[in-house]
Amino acid sequence: MKNERKLIEQTIDSEYVFDGVLLKVYRDRARLPSGDSSVREWIRHPGASAILPLFENGDVMLIKQFRYPMSQIFYEVPAGKIDSGEDPLQTGVRELREEVGLSAKNWRYLGLFYPSIGYTNEVIHLYLATGLDHHSSNTDDDEFVIPERVPFAEAVNMVHRGDITDGKTMITILRAWQVSQEISSSAGS
Amino acid sequence: MKNERKLIEQTIDSEYVFDGVLLKVYRDRARLPSGDSSVREWIRHPGASAILPLFENGDVMLIKQFRYPMSQIFYEVPAGKIDSGEDPLQTGVRELREEVGLSAKNWRYLGLFYPSIGYTNEVIHLYLATGLDHHSSNTDDDEFVIPERVPFAEAVNMVHRGDITDGKTMITILRAWQVSQEISSSAGS
Repeated sequence: MKNERKLIEQTIDSEYVFDGVLLKVYRDRARLPSGDSSVREWIRHPGASAILPLFENGDVMLIKQFRYPMSQIFYEVPAGKIDSGEDPLQTGVRELREEVGLSAKNWRYLGLFYPSIGYTNEVIHLYLATGLDHHSSNTDDDEFVIPERVPFAEAVNMVHRGDITDGKTMITILRAWQVSQEISSSAGS
Repeated sequence: MKNERKLIEQTIDSEYVFDGVLLKVYRDRARLPSGDSSVREWIRHPGASAILPLFENGDVMLIKQFRYPMSQIFYEVPAGKIDSGEDPLQTGVRELREEVGLSAKNWRYLGLFYPSIGYTNEVIHLYLATGLDHHSSNTDDDEFVIPERVPFAEAVNMVHRGDITDGKTMITILRAWQVSQEISSSAGS
């Protein structure tokens, strides 16, 4: 731990340089471990939740969605930004219902991760949702998605074959698969 | 595929709204599938390469690095941005040498992924590097890292225990582990 102190950077000052609808960009000056200063540009993000809905027959629900920065359609898990005042589980419950019209009796937390530690403080909370019920979905006005049910093991294969290339979706599927294997092996022993 | 057409968005116009040292931010107007228009803010990124160096004794080399947006130290795989004119493999070779002072005889491509499809076109190429040789490292002036060797299976456990929470590092380790299991099972059959 003493050794780690030589990694730490301290904020000298911070400037709010771009106030977008989605992107809130800061440019800070930081004191480096060497004593020099350097520019650190970063995006403030409210965090997000991502959910893998798992049906009783062993299918999971993915969505296909067009993503503007790559101009490409991706397979994704349902996910969305945390609204002001929400906790991450509430976000998961809301997004699952809005994006694919599902509610879930059981919510298992799979941990969190940081998608781009170099330039944003975004954190994504991961959930496995089971005990699913159908409702009507209600996507945002500027969001268009196509839901698709896939056997869980096939979703894992899609990650390793390179058919799923969205980071949060890869991590949610691989984490959920690991946890479901642990559950079934402890149930079998 | 015909169904997917109803997902696609078209650029109406694009404005370069923030020209940072690292972050290049655009604000576009996009025509939505519904016919309405919406704002799309996104970051142009040159792409990156991430490398898992695997030693003959079964250890992998991780690094500890302070990340300013979270003000937190992370375990990471060596990685870095693609310089102008480089191909992703050259970036991997350069970053492995600069960050941890290693060269590798064998480079196995593990595929690519997109860390934050909502707001950046960044793509990260993943490599498993074996046949390692030590040199002296030569990190950038504003980069400070502590290397740490960990048994490969323990690195996988660190992902599932939540001790590794950097997205690119989680994906590189889990992809590399899957590929190394495939190699050893085909060698054993």
